Amino acid sequence: MKDATFLMPFFNSLLPYSSNQQCLIMVGSLQEFLAAAVDAAKKAGQLIREKFYLTKHVVHKGEVDLVTETDKACEDLVFGHLKQRFPSHKFIGEETTAANGAVELTDEPTWIVDPIDGTTNFVHGFPFVCVSIGLTIGKVPTVGVVFNPIIDELFTGIRGQGAYLNEKAIKVSSQDELMKSLLAIEIAATRDKSYIDATTGRINRLLFKARSLRISGSCALSLCDIAYGRIDLFYINGYGGPWDVAAGAVIVTEAGGLVYDPSGTEFDITATRVASSNPLLKEAFVEALAHP
Amino acid sequence: MKDATFLMPFFNSLLPYSSNQQCLIMVGSLQEFLAAAVDAAKKAGQLIREKFYLTKHVVHKGEVDLVTETDKACEDLVFGHLKQRFPSHKFIGEETTAANGAVELTDEPTWIVDPIDGTTNFVHGFPFVCVSIGLTIGKVPTVGVVFNPIIDELFTGIRGQGAYLNEKAIKVSSQDELMKSLLAIEIAATRDKSYIDATTGRINRLLFKARSLRISGSCALSLCDIAYGRIDLFYINGYGGPWDVAAGAVIVTEAGGLVYDPSGTEFDITATRVASSNPLLKEAFVEALAHP
Repeated sequence: MKDATFLMPFFNSLLPYSSNQQCLIMVGSLQEFLAAAVDAAKKAGQLIREKFYLTKHVVHKGEVDLVTETDKACEDLVFGHLKQRFPSHKFIGEETTAANGAVELTDEPTWIVDPIDGTTNFVHGFPFVCVSIGLTIGKVPTVGVVFNPIIDELFTGIRGQGAYLNEKAIKVSSQDELMKSLLAIEIAATRDKSYIDATTGRINRLLFKARSLRISGSCALSLCDIAYGRIDLFYINGYGGPWDVAAGAVIVTEAGGLVYDPSGTEFDITATRVASSNPLLKEAFVEALAHP
Repeated sequence: MKDATFLMPFFNSLLPYSSNQQCLIMVGSLQEFLAAAVDAAKKAGQLIREKFYLTKHVVHKGEVDLVTETDKACEDLVFGHLKQRFPSHKFIGEETTAANGAVELTDEPTWIVDPIDGTTNFVHGFPFVCVSIGLTIGKVPTVGVVFNPIIDELFTGIRGQGAYLNEKAIKVSSQDELMKSLLAIEIAATRDKSYIDATTGRINRLLFKARSLRISGSCALSLCDIAYGRIDLFYINGYGGPWDVAAGAVIVTEAGGLVYDPSGTEFDITATRVASSNPLLKEAFVEALAHP
């Protein structure tokens, strides 16, 4: 866990104030950031919900356009909403960033947005889709909102202030035995043979060590499942970018869980690998993830 | 597909009537059977929903008792409801039958009930759980009800009269390319090494042939996902018993889909293997399921 220096860029903007005032402003600001992100997520969610029920009726060629258009429209909507309120902040979005090459994450307050996480589910009408909005300050995930508008689940978290599902506090499971744990994974979109072989080899080993396996098709929602305690173990090797995890990482951490590199080392939001569980399971999970 | 001889035991009870009257009575009866099954499913669903939100707060030892008790209570509730209305019918339930050994399915109208399909999900609070109620006549699945009380999805079907989700007609997807198809599988509870190796070997091959993989943890709901068209391909090798598929098989068929043995031969409800898709994908799916 990093210490409070991750908040320095933010503190610098508070220098004119006394330290008491700074604390009040900061807490107030984080809650303001969350409120704005929730508003943006709900707007985008409404659009996702409208289009979700159309996709199955679109001919296959048109399907791709519908996804691209909805993805882009949601990102514009979220960015527009947040930029108006926080014009000095930085923005990273799956749509814009994927189009412009590498992600440059700085210490500045940065909104990291996946307008539709679970795009394949969206296309097929499988109800695990969400909008994911995270805010990093000093590169540390600090505010997170993940909203599934199809089954109406809104996950939120602010660093140091807890995690919530539809405004009720949530916490990770208290499971401490791998063999009784429910495991979720995501499989990256690549069909590279060495990746698929490594993935199914790992599934094979894990099936002997955990109770059962789930694959829902959304990285952000799987992290929220960990936070809510309905999944005990999650990992993905090869997620798309920081937009898949920025919001979920805050929510898991604030629910009492951990996010870490599958090797057990510190989580790096730009590394496209993440594992997550409650603290009791981490050691055994890391061992199970390593080659036998 | 079998011909109408599967209805003979039922026709025999109609012999005093004219053929026109018989038809009216039969259609009326099937709808009466469905209505009774829906009532029973909703009652059981209410109980499942109440207990679903308790499981996470139960200590681990008590968890098993809670599942067993809820499973048994739901089966008693469903059987009680149906036996009162149809005392001459036969009954097969996961709870009673699993306790009493082999399943004997006759030509008589037989209610086949899984009081909680997705038991592991139920324990962990993962929202894919359902009550599954099927009626076979002449061993052919004829009425099906699958109800997920957590996300409030009620799937119904009557042979020859269509399939419905929350009373709206549903149909399977029109996808005709394996590579654009969303695949769902279930993995049986056994941890026998040869089974797990065969399963992950098949996952490996299928990941190169389909768009993506989902595992929800409920066989009955996965069949309904096929019927609703949000999953294109489904198979399980090693399901628990006919209660996992009796209702889902009617619903898929009535939504325009197919259920078949993964080898491509006719579906046998007692064989504990099933594959399902729309008709356009069957040939390619069977080929993909076979060893390369």
